[in-house]
Amino acid sequence: MGMGGPSPGNIFTALPKDPTREAFEEILRLGEVRLERIVSRGHRSPEGFWYDQPGEEWVMLVRGNAILRFAKPEQVIEMSPGDYVRIPAHCRHRVEWTDPDTESIWLAIHLPAPAGKGRVP
Amino acid sequence: MGMGGPSPGNIFTALPKDPTREAFEEILRLGEVRLERIVSRGHRSPEGFWYDQPGEEWVMLVRGNAILRFAKPEQVIEMSPGDYVRIPAHCRHRVEWTDPDTESIWLAIHLPAPAGKGRVP
Repeated sequence: MGMGGPSPGNIFTALPKDPTREAFEEILRLGEVRLERIVSRGHRSPEGFWYDQPGEEWVMLVRGNAILRFAKPEQVIEMSPGDYVRIPAHCRHRVEWTDPDTESIWLAIHLPAPAGKGRVP
Repeated sequence: MGMGGPSPGNIFTALPKDPTREAFEEILRLGEVRLERIVSRGHRSPEGFWYDQPGEEWVMLVRGNAILRFAKPEQVIEMSPGDYVRIPAHCRHRVEWTDPDTESIWLAIHLPAPAGKGRVP
């Protein structure tokens, strides 16, 4: 086949065997762009924890049900399949809830930090 | 709200009003990374046409049914919801078929060309 051919896959298959652990899997990495599948089942971010990322993220819920919480402006966004959110760099957010009765499958795209703004000391 | 807040959307809503035209819409652009929704209904690439792109593409069928054809190695890949394909730079491909009876919705991520390999004269 060589490196030049297409590589197929499916986002719904090969689900993690242990549903008690939230699963983060890299689908693709190219330079600073990273594509990730996340499988949650009743998982939520730890109490008081906020994601605060140097780069932008785009995340879509492909299957399941979830709620994201944002710090500023303070709001919650209920996610159903097909819903996506663009999350700017350093926009603090957390997973408030995911459905405990089914797998929620996310597709997350992590984008590079803006040039010269990668890190705030 | 300011620029710092989250921007939500849904990939299944606001479908194009004219189903006779294949619709390409940019969801997000950041630097050289471009995220696109494509809505097809019975559309296919023109006879003899091949996509031959300088950058890598990752494309997932979110809804519908489709067939992609690749030139080298010669193969077809049938796509159902959740199926995705990583298409290397300059891997020639075409849309051979999309379901004429329903909207097929694609999420395509266009990635930058490899450094120094952007164009082959």
